[in-house]
Amino acid sequence: MRSFFSIIARDPSSAARAGLLRTAHGRVETPAFGPVASQGTVKALTHRQLRELGAQIILVNAYHLYLRPGPEEIARLGGVHRFISWNRPILSDSGGFQIYSLTPLAKVKEEGVRFSSHLDGTKIFLRPEDVVDIQVKLGTDIMMCLDTFLPYPASKEKMTEAVRLTTQWAKRSRARFDEQPTRQQLWGITQGGVHWDLRQRSIEELMDIGFPGYALGGLGIGEPKSLLLETVERACRLLPPDKPRYLMGIGYLADILEAVERGVDFFDCVLPTRNARNGSLFTSRGSMAIKNQKYARDERPLDEDCRCYTCRNFSRAYLRHLFERGEISSAVLNTIHNLYFYLDFFRKIRQSISSNSFKELKRNFVSKEVQTS
Amino acid sequence: MRSFFSIIARDPSSAARAGLLRTAHGRVETPAFGPVASQGTVKALTHRQLRELGAQIILVNAYHLYLRPGPEEIARLGGVHRFISWNRPILSDSGGFQIYSLTPLAKVKEEGVRFSSHLDGTKIFLRPEDVVDIQVKLGTDIMMCLDTFLPYPASKEKMTEAVRLTTQWAKRSRARFDEQPTRQQLWGITQGGVHWDLRQRSIEELMDIGFPGYALGGLGIGEPKSLLLETVERACRLLPPDKPRYLMGIGYLADILEAVERGVDFFDCVLPTRNARNGSLFTSRGSMAIKNQKYARDERPLDEDCRCYTCRNFSRAYLRHLFERGEISSAVLNTIHNLYFYLDFFRKIRQSISSNSFKELKRNFVSKEVQTS
Repeated sequence: MRSFFSIIARDPSSAARAGLLRTAHGRVETPAFGPVASQGTVKALTHRQLRELGAQIILVNAYHLYLRPGPEEIARLGGVHRFISWNRPILSDSGGFQIYSLTPLAKVKEEGVRFSSHLDGTKIFLRPEDVVDIQVKLGTDIMMCLDTFLPYPASKEKMTEAVRLTTQWAKRSRARFDEQPTRQQLWGITQGGVHWDLRQRSIEELMDIGFPGYALGGLGIGEPKSLLLETVERACRLLPPDKPRYLMGIGYLADILEAVERGVDFFDCVLPTRNARNGSLFTSRGSMAIKNQKYARDERPLDEDCRCYTCRNFSRAYLRHLFERGEISSAVLNTIHNLYFYLDFFRKIRQSISSNSFKELKRNFVSKEVQTS
Repeated sequence: MRSFFSIIARDPSSAARAGLLRTAHGRVETPAFGPVASQGTVKALTHRQLRELGAQIILVNAYHLYLRPGPEEIARLGGVHRFISWNRPILSDSGGFQIYSLTPLAKVKEEGVRFSSHLDGTKIFLRPEDVVDIQVKLGTDIMMCLDTFLPYPASKEKMTEAVRLTTQWAKRSRARFDEQPTRQQLWGITQGGVHWDLRQRSIEELMDIGFPGYALGGLGIGEPKSLLLETVERACRLLPPDKPRYLMGIGYLADILEAVERGVDFFDCVLPTRNARNGSLFTSRGSMAIKNQKYARDERPLDEDCRCYTCRNFSRAYLRHLFERGEISSAVLNTIHNLYFYLDFFRKIRQSISSNSFKELKRNFVSKEVQTS
């Protein structure tokens, strides 16, 4: 297997590491945050804005694009990069999470998953092989295996079965993937919730298959924070040190710092973009609800330390006005700010690891959080 | 009165002219199109995008900003330019049209207009003097007198009274405006529909008062095109040749060309921005509804002759996908295109007048329209 990942710096006092992820469409510095572009657009942003914010990779969703416009259409249009005109790396989530969360009657069988489209009820059956085929057609740089997913809490019995099936599907995904010559990468998703013995089994079985990257799925769905972090810590000790680790769907900055400290390399979450549209804005002094009346006369930028377009040009009073009026530009300006804040946060994390000051960055972040909460 | 306007070129074969409008926040080349930013934002665009499209002036609406956040709030925040962070010229419409169209029970009295807020029913009474005061507080570069407005068709009797009152209000507006030292300009709005004797009276009475610019109000509301154009033609012959002429709310390019040919200098309309959000896009070959299934596999840009960000980067297939998914970026990219198309059209009009080729431009436009309709 070609080397898609190299570590360029390690934090001396923790398991945090900075690395470079190589894909067919360029490199991604890690720890990295992938903004979510489920339908092929980060909601409210143009690609130009996204590039200027420093996004090195985005996520699309195989489930959504499978339903519309469909993988054949996208393949006919030259693949997802060309279809959406984004020439940097793209990761596609397999859509497992969406199948289980958007179509509650999904039935998992040995062969695959049967569900009804959340759009029009059309019955669909997808095998792990199909999901590989879909993502090959999309032509994303990093594709994910179809996994099984259980809400929290799940019984040990059910979780045991979910882990077994996830491994079977990972094997079949890998076999299907290996049949086709492609510059894409297929990553595995481990399951097991916070049952360590099951998570361990899932990781070991996926390592036996061998993937260029490993994700931790089924976390951040209601389990206690301490169990989440313990699982992440043990998982990172067990996973191959030279492969990227992806903690799916975890988005709070405090959690991200804890996970980076334990050795996680890659994150995605709708939090910064969804919150932006809801008027919830991240700042270096905590989060703010822009609709609050107290901002109506506030001439300051959202965050006086922020260098984003929104903060360099607009007052809280104006941003509140746009939000209250339901203006589209409210979503745009808020998303620019929140995503800048996130991507800048990751830049600082990477710099701190390279300059042996990650612990200090984390301490400062925690003390600010305490001050403002 | 200082000279706010100068003519720099005249079309030899028509009444079309190119000019320069001077305001406290810079100059505007005419014939000009003012994108509508009722609430202080052109819907779906950032100011940066708007500047890059070449917008030299935008319109805000005194009625909307009066209701929320209110002129006092805006004055406290340093005026509308500072509040919205746009340092180029701004024209404020008096809001007369909005009062009559959004609050159907508006009662016009000699003293002013009584209406209920379309938001919460609050009873409001506004005199023309109040509307001047509001716009002075906003600090817009060009402000408009409060006029009276009648839907089409209106009886001659009612229109006679509307014209009389519009003149009275224009006098009172002017008197109020003259009390305050300001670098703003107050323009008059003429009424009279397509009754030429009444329109003539309205124009003559407003010219007696004397304004640095004159608008034609109450047109483009259902009257036959021939009557509209005849009214515009006669009005432009009657209006002072050295003052700018503003045809309010007229937005179809064919009508704009006819009006420019008759001597109109300034236009505004929600058409390009509203149509963009509805997926109706202007191109050099006619308009297109992007939701049409036939675009699902169409890799071409909206308009192969267009140099806008949207056309330089995205296919019809992707733009259709974004529109169908209800993505915010659909509104953004479509608005960029439509507004570029409009502002570019006005650039071409100005160039053609300066290079004695306006008739040719118009002929080409009309022949393309015929080909594609």
